This record gives sequence, structure tokens and C-alpha cells, in this order.
Amino acid sequence: MPNIPVVETILSVNDQLAEQNRKTLDDAGVLALNVMASPGGGKTTVIGKTIDALRDDVRIGVMDGDIVAIDLEGFAAQGIPVSLINTGGNCHLDANMVHNALPTMDLNALDLLIIENVGNLVCPAAFKLGSHINVVIASVPEGADKPYKYPAMFSGADVLLLNKMDLAEYMEFDVEYFRHGVEVLNPGVAFFPISCRTGEGLDAWIDWLRARLAEKAQPGA
Amino acid sequence: MPNIPVVETILSVNDQLAEQNRKTLDDAGVLALNVMASPGGGKTTVIGKTIDALRDDVRIGVMDGDIVAIDLEGFAAQGIPVSLINTGGNCHLDANMVHNALPTMDLNALDLLIIENVGNLVCPAAFKLGSHINVVIASVPEGADKPYKYPAMFSGADVLLLNKMDLAEYMEFDVEYFRHGVEVLNPGVAFFPISCRTGEGLDAWIDWLRARLAEKAQPGA
Repeated sequence: MPNIPVVETILSVNDQLAEQNRKTLDDAGVLALNVMASPGGGKTTVIGKTIDALRDDVRIGVMDGDIVAIDLEGFAAQGIPVSLINTGGNCHLDANMVHNALPTMDLNALDLLIIENVGNLVCPAAFKLGSHINVVIASVPEGADKPYKYPAMFSGADVLLLNKMDLAEYMEFDVEYFRHGVEVLNPGVAFFPISCRTGEGLDAWIDWLRARLAEKAQPGA
Repeated sequence: MPNIPVVETILSVNDQLAEQNRKTLDDAGVLALNVMASPGGGKTTVIGKTIDALRDDVRIGVMDGDIVAIDLEGFAAQGIPVSLINTGGNCHLDANMVHNALPTMDLNALDLLIIENVGNLVCPAAFKLGSHINVVIASVPEGADKPYKYPAMFSGADVLLLNKMDLAEYMEFDVEYFRHGVEVLNPGVAFFPISCRTGEGLDAWIDWLRARLAEKAQPGA
């Protein structure tokens, strides 16, 4: 590929900006999630359920990389601070986009920043944002072979949510094949099968996230 | 974005190579499909069903942009000529990849070449391959808002298959909202709701494709 040097330069600059973003977030005491999934994997719905579970005692903001604000309107209507990163059709968020969006939010008024990436299992994996936790959402209807087909995304996950478990009974989904693919790439990754429709598994995910928030609040503990 | 000139150059070179690919395909009398979808949208399954329906009287080859050959092994076992375009984790096929892969297939022995793109609703839309028909597969579990979120992909479709219709009864899927989104972007696009599991709608898609093959075989008609 003739353009590899260009790509390497972009990634290097990206990493530097990601480090700056991380410092900005850390200085404000904000834990940031980078939520990634296929189109229709359930990012927005999972974020909504997460907000519902935490909002009474966690101050949450949402950044959304998208070309339209329809996902954010519902959150904003609930009084959640939101920021649209208009990707103009780009295939991923990068650190510069987040860098430009961070000043639009009052970070000192937040504990948790949820960044919803572009629906894409390939490109977002290559671009650090400066966030603390990579949340990858897979979904049952996508099929159990996805870890084998998109290894960069699954190997970079800090936590993996397998969404739409309520549909598992209506289709063939080999959970063991899926888990094996994940385990080879990312041994011991936090893994939660969930259904936003039935609520299955959401408590375990929320407990895990609460533990990360507690660690962040007491970094010396 | 500082790299727009680079991107423009890449796209211009890509278009030239796509024209060369088109000529190569036309000279051999091959109709080529560029099959695009989200990860897990059902590309490989739809291709399998299409092969099953046509193979008695249409000579079919498959090219697959992927990092592993697992999708192709099944087709090869059935005696279908296949070629793996190893994308090395790239997020889309481009005309150069297809250009390099075309000589690996005996085009004069084919009527139909099915090119399975990388699972991604963003990047593949920007890169012409030289194929004749853009086949976009959406699937019910991805949600009815996808045309609104990924307009470039839906506006570039020559035919749109809405897959996994068998799951529609187990979830909320507003077909009218989906169709409205498509109609605004791409009025009159050929649209077939299908289920590879139950067979629903596949005959209509196959009839449509047979008509395109007949046009190709008699370009003066």
C-alpha cells in the first residue's frame, strides 16, 4: 500500500492527542468509555440502559460520533449533557475529534463520559481516543463468528457485551464458538451476555462499571 | 482534515482502476456484484442461497475480502471458483485489490462474479470496484434507522435486500420507517425483504438477478 507512511503519521499524531485527552479527563476525574459495535449492535440502547441504571448517583455525559443527532436527542431530553461529533460520514472517531469536542462539555460536572463511536467493527479499533475503557458490543444476530472475522476489535476490548441474548432462542448461535474466539484473542476479558429488551445480564455489567468508577474515584486505593 | 488531498488522490486512482476492472469484466461477459453489509448482516449466507438457486445454469465465481478464508471454504467445497482478497484488516475493498485478484480467476468460464466486501456500512461505499451492481444487505435486527445513519451506503445501492425478516416478529421493526429512509435517499431502488432461514423473498431477488444476467448476455437487446 503506497499510503502506509501517511497512515503511520496519522496514527502517531492520534496517539499524542489521545494522551492529551486522557490527561484532560484524568484532571477532571472523569472515567471515559469508548463504545464500539457494528451498525445496529445496540450501542445507543446499551448507553440508554446504562444511564437509566446509574443516573441517580453518577453524573453522566454522552458524546456521539454520527452524522445526525437522533441518538442524542433522547438523552438530551432526559437532561443528560450531550455533544455531537459530526463525523461527516467518516468511518471512525479519532483523538482529534474528541479533543475538539471535550471543551464543549463541562467535565468538572461529570463522573462518567460515554463516547459512542461510529458503527463499525474495523476502523475504530485503530484509533485511540484517550478514553479509559474500550466497550465492545457484539450482538447475537451478527453471528458467533465475529471474533474470528474482526480480531482487532475483539482483542482491544476491555469489556465485551454480547447483546440481544433474547434472540438466541430464535436462531442458531454457538456461544461456545463465540467465547472460544474471544478467549484466544483476549484471554480473561470481562464478558457479559445481556439483553436490553429483557434486562438479562445488565446488572452484572452495571456492577462491573460501578467498580471501575469506584477505582477511578479512589486512584490511590 | 489535513489528509483530504491524499484521500482525493486515492479515490481518483481508484476510479481509474475500477474502469479498467469494468472493461476486463465486460470483455469476458461477466456480470459482477459488489455485496456490502454490516458485519453479520448475512452477506455470506445470501451469497450461498444465490449460488444454490442459480448454479445449475449460471457459472458463478466468488471473491471475498476478508482476513480469513472460512467463508470461502464452503463455496470451494461445492466446486465454485473462489479467490480470497486478504484485506489485512483493511476496512473496505478497493479497485486495486480487485484488479490484482481478477487474474486469479478464469473469467471466461464465468457468467457471474460475486464480490463479498468487508463487513462495514461506511467505507466500502466510497470505493468503486468496477462491478456492475451494488448489492446492499440490511438486516432486521440492525434496526429500522440504518438508512438515516449510513446514507452513503443506502444511496449507492442498486438493489437492497432486507434480510432476517423471520426475526421481525420477535422485535420492533418499523418497515415503513425503514422504507421511507431508503426512498428519500434512493427513490425506486429495487427492494426485497428476504429471510435466508425461511426462504421468504429469495425467489423475487433471484428473478431480479436473472433479469440482470439476461440483459448482460444480450447487451444490444
